[in-house]
Amino acid sequence: MRTLSSDSAELTEEYGIRIGRWAQYAEAASLPFGAMWCMVGPGSSSVQDCHPEMELAVVVSGQAAFEVEGAGTTVAPTGTAVLLDPQERHVIHNRSEAEPLTVLSLYWLPAPVADDSAPRERS
Amino acid sequence: MRTLSSDSAELTEEYGIRIGRWAQYAEAASLPFGAMWCMVGPGSSSVQDCHPEMELAVVVSGQAAFEVEGAGTTVAPTGTAVLLDPQERHVIHNRSEAEPLTVLSLYWLPAPVADDSAPRERS
Repeated sequence: MRTLSSDSAELTEEYGIRIGRWAQYAEAASLPFGAMWCMVGPGSSSVQDCHPEMELAVVVSGQAAFEVEGAGTTVAPTGTAVLLDPQERHVIHNRSEAEPLTVLSLYWLPAPVADDSAPRERS
Repeated sequence: MRTLSSDSAELTEEYGIRIGRWAQYAEAASLPFGAMWCMVGPGSSSVQDCHPEMELAVVVSGQAAFEVEGAGTTVAPTGTAVLLDPQERHVIHNRSEAEPLTVLSLYWLPAPVADDSAPRERS
């Protein structure tokens, strides 16, 4: 068993917030997804993010407000999971003036699917 | 974007606790792992569990104590992630007499690896 905590993670400044990439853990290579801790200070926001991966964002401390382009803003208290589709442009806000916000973000490229709309050979 | 919360999930009684399997969400089919909410009441514990999947258990409310056979017990406050290897026998305890415990459990079969210990053809 291995215990992982944002408290002891090495952090970098990315996306306008502090990021703890799980690539720092040897065990990360055996996961079927990438992962990072996302730490948003009180009154702060990430920059807008958009990527080809699906993302599962789990709020593990504080309260997040996920602003998704074209879909408004959703408040997500601690314990909420948010599933973002590929290419959904999103910003994470921490609207609290006192409490830090930590989100565990998991992401992976979606499996390719058969495209029934593609032109077919004539029979 | 889709918001998922244990508060509104359909729950079943399994492993001696309440389980909210993500198979109830249409989006679960597009995830590269299985997932479930695990809700352990105050002063309660799960039954011992052991499975061939790797498991990432994320404590999203309350405080868990993970008891792993042969490896003792680790206290995991809200926001802690615990990575369990295949076949690690484990029990989740909620030692609080007042606060509920919710764990988001993700699990997947590990990718097969080349077995260097296997007999090789002689050259």
